[in-house]
Amino acid sequence: MSLLVVGSVAFDSVATPFGQVEEVLGGSGTFFSTAASFFTDVQLVAVVGEDFPDEHRRFLASREIDLRGLRTAPGRTFRWKGRYGFDLNEAQTLDTQLNVFETFRPELPAGYEDAEYVFLANIDPELQMDVLKQVKRPRLVACDTMNFWISGKREALLKTLRHVDLLVINEGETRQLAGEANLVKAARAVLAMGPKTLVVKRGEYGVIMFTEHSIFTAPAYPLETVFDPTGAGDTFAGGFMGYLASTRNLADANIRQAIIFGSIMASFNVEDFSLNRLKTLDIEQVHERFRQFRLLTDFSPED
Amino acid sequence: MSLLVVGSVAFDSVATPFGQVEEVLGGSGTFFSTAASFFTDVQLVAVVGEDFPDEHRRFLASREIDLRGLRTAPGRTFRWKGRYGFDLNEAQTLDTQLNVFETFRPELPAGYEDAEYVFLANIDPELQMDVLKQVKRPRLVACDTMNFWISGKREALLKTLRHVDLLVINEGETRQLAGEANLVKAARAVLAMGPKTLVVKRGEYGVIMFTEHSIFTAPAYPLETVFDPTGAGDTFAGGFMGYLASTRNLADANIRQAIIFGSIMASFNVEDFSLNRLKTLDIEQVHERFRQFRLLTDFSPED
Repeated sequence: MSLLVVGSVAFDSVATPFGQVEEVLGGSGTFFSTAASFFTDVQLVAVVGEDFPDEHRRFLASREIDLRGLRTAPGRTFRWKGRYGFDLNEAQTLDTQLNVFETFRPELPAGYEDAEYVFLANIDPELQMDVLKQVKRPRLVACDTMNFWISGKREALLKTLRHVDLLVINEGETRQLAGEANLVKAARAVLAMGPKTLVVKRGEYGVIMFTEHSIFTAPAYPLETVFDPTGAGDTFAGGFMGYLASTRNLADANIRQAIIFGSIMASFNVEDFSLNRLKTLDIEQVHERFRQFRLLTDFSPED
Repeated sequence: MSLLVVGSVAFDSVATPFGQVEEVLGGSGTFFSTAASFFTDVQLVAVVGEDFPDEHRRFLASREIDLRGLRTAPGRTFRWKGRYGFDLNEAQTLDTQLNVFETFRPELPAGYEDAEYVFLANIDPELQMDVLKQVKRPRLVACDTMNFWISGKREALLKTLRHVDLLVINEGETRQLAGEANLVKAARAVLAMGPKTLVVKRGEYGVIMFTEHSIFTAPAYPLETVFDPTGAGDTFAGGFMGYLASTRNLADANIRQAIIFGSIMASFNVEDFSLNRLKTLDIEQVHERFRQFRLLTDFSPED
């Protein structure tokens, strides 16, 4: 039930209408592995600079995340600065400093090649492909990507997608990748590129999942306080893949359960900056919110 | 189980990326009553001009809609002209000719005052209040409104809302009415204005319903062909209220079922211009799509 994630570990500076933080712990690999750690063992492959504090490393270790793949390189850690307006669905990037991430070449430590579940967070599709060459026979490979790669490295991305079982992207990315405005048609085009399953993230509208034969919709949990959406997509993916890896079951019904667990983890994460909410979260709160999701979507006939 | 609707009957001219039509049958009262007629008897109160053709009247009568309240006034029928881009969520109004609708004063024919279910479509809130003064003791009063009344006739609207059980508006209108960006907070503010239930329409993202004690989300049916969204909201309301009136059951579980039936009717209506799709729809297709909604939202554990 090993789950491997390759992604970024970063310092985020974020301003929302509700406050702001400077250089807090962030990055796709961080959000993903923390969320997944509620369900399963996680191996994190990423790079940080010499300025990465022990405090953060201790936090990740406290989540029992395997950090043998977290390399420290000469230089500074990746930094991202962004802000959100009242429409919390879209971040405005103010500054990106790749730093040590610029020359990141994922190398799996010994033993990681046996990973059964693999998540390739949003990095250069060529690096995603490099990772796939290093794993033996995963049961499930999932990946994320973004507009930058869809337009800038389309051929490399298409090559990676041919080796990916499940793609997790947002609605605009789905339309862009397919070149099609209608989401159902766009999804069908994306499924023809390789992935058997497409999970489309829709922010406050939840998630819609497409396979060849079925469609599944899950709402986002309605929140009175969305404090900071940073990392919501990666936290979703972490909860989703963590649950799948822990249950070792890729039946459609179980993937749907995993979608709900992913949505739950994302819903907690946006309640505070950085990973602050996940730091105090316990699994009983996760299960309580699962029951809330049932009530939220239930339309069975009256007893 | 009588259902009364007061709204507009209009000629619509619509252009979408997929085609265009000139002066076809439209109007909130038309879409509502046609959708509702699949479930229950409907009484339509509206006004048309002398140019309203018998053909349309015969169609409405063929749906067994009671047309005693459809008055013919000297002059021309209400006309609306609009277009949609590839983002089919928002119409751009090109022209509005109120014509006979400008001096519309709803007067209920004898017998209509006993209506048990009342829907006040999107008209001047003062006229909505006039209608409420003419009905005796409805079991459920629902209404729609729009940005024009929220900003332009706020006091009259707030007065009407104090007499309304259920409000059906879209997401932007909810935020505008409450003056609050967060939808959950906005919904709570709207519930404090009078309605016990708030049904928020979210276009292709479905519907979210708020009561004091519960939230319910329903997806929109994922369609490969959204041909013309005109009337989707009124068709939703018609299916919703029609189902409620036919079942005479205002329990939360039954209102949720009604939301699904409303969503189904709207999903059919957008598949073609005007009421063309509803004209060929039969109730078995409605029930088949209900089964599809179950599959779409189901995340029960594997058998």
